[in-house]
Amino acid sequence: MTYCVGMLLKDGLVMLSDSRTNAGVDNIATFRKMTLWEKPGERVIALMSSGNLAITQAVTTMLDEGMGESGDTIVKVPSMFAAAQMVGKAVRAVYSEVGGELEAKDPGLFNVSFLLGGQIKGRRCRLFQVYSAGNFIHASELTPFFQIGEHKYGKPILDRALGFDTDLRRAAKLALISMDSTLRSNLSVGMPLDLLIYRTDALKVELRRTIDEDDKYFREIRQGWSTSLRNALVSLPDVPW
Amino acid sequence: MTYCVGMLLKDGLVMLSDSRTNAGVDNIATFRKMTLWEKPGERVIALMSSGNLAITQAVTTMLDEGMGESGDTIVKVPSMFAAAQMVGKAVRAVYSEVGGELEAKDPGLFNVSFLLGGQIKGRRCRLFQVYSAGNFIHASELTPFFQIGEHKYGKPILDRALGFDTDLRRAAKLALISMDSTLRSNLSVGMPLDLLIYRTDALKVELRRTIDEDDKYFREIRQGWSTSLRNALVSLPDVPW
Repeated sequence: MTYCVGMLLKDGLVMLSDSRTNAGVDNIATFRKMTLWEKPGERVIALMSSGNLAITQAVTTMLDEGMGESGDTIVKVPSMFAAAQMVGKAVRAVYSEVGGELEAKDPGLFNVSFLLGGQIKGRRCRLFQVYSAGNFIHASELTPFFQIGEHKYGKPILDRALGFDTDLRRAAKLALISMDSTLRSNLSVGMPLDLLIYRTDALKVELRRTIDEDDKYFREIRQGWSTSLRNALVSLPDVPW
Repeated sequence: MTYCVGMLLKDGLVMLSDSRTNAGVDNIATFRKMTLWEKPGERVIALMSSGNLAITQAVTTMLDEGMGESGDTIVKVPSMFAAAQMVGKAVRAVYSEVGGELEAKDPGLFNVSFLLGGQIKGRRCRLFQVYSAGNFIHASELTPFFQIGEHKYGKPILDRALGFDTDLRRAAKLALISMDSTLRSNLSVGMPLDLLIYRTDALKVELRRTIDEDDKYFREIRQGWSTSLRNALVSLPDVPW
């Protein structure tokens, strides 16, 4: 399984992914689920993926190395919308190659989704969610975050506290708390984490950080959040009876 | 959908259910999902259900009105284990009647689960989860809570803060916070709520309460919890960069 969250905010983007893949509980591995294409001053494009690893790796490689006869790559697209179209096209290309065989084994096997965020010079900063049919939606002020993978455990805190106006620092903190809730409740989501922060119009990554078990800040957040929740629980009034 | 949580604690039981049923977003109704059989001084048995409403109602009615030729009812069982066996038997009886037709329409339609908690004089206080095949498991000190229905949104707070030693008042508060997270994130879980608290060896219900939108205490908990989370978020250190 996987948990990735992407946020489109007034000041920019926050993207966070875990790195556990599993095909059964005794076949667990660690793969980065975030891929970054950055050309400072011109473009920042980040892609996070969830689902069948063979498919997501094939898609990412096609975006990187070139699609079809034209050989177009994601570092040449003119806009984030075109980038989302290219991801969708790559998903469909992989489907046309292996989709039939996969679905013959199990109708649910062609299972993949992506979060694509970034900005290209002169265009808007955007965030898309791309589905396994290659179709996609974009985030907006009313729905400033998307999640893929094991999304439910980490959703309540985002529903409560994240808005389009949340600043990048607080949003990053929220993403990590949301991830922490997921890590605690689901064994198939695991460290290390990849965190990326992008400030609109900077056209370069503001922060990219791999967070492992020993990360001092993440440990502080985990412990501090647990303590805060326990204190909050104590301070609320008891059920009257 | 549904969300029910049952807790088996050193001091007794906490059980909480929502009351929304839906067959599509335009076909929503309100049904109690908690049934109580109480004979003060002798037995307290509470059953919460999730899944196909026709099945859960059939099972509950059979337990109440009598099973098969013997006409056994749940108010006569000698132990909670026997009560769980009877719930399982009722589930299988309903399956043998309608399971084939339901599964012919859709293999997932015979979908039901129960939380059964209580105590019978001279026996232990217990909590069971009964599955759609009629098999069941019991809660223990290491796993003091069970959830059925839409369980993921409300699980992180229980994973963090609930233990076998948690007292009944705090556990009830936790159940309500867990329910609140679920209500906020999933439209198919809805008010009013049914809360039941049972103290081990009391052999009568300590508290049973229907909580609706206007319930002053639940509103206080919802608002207080949101405020506490926001404050906690502010007080945690920002991502350093």
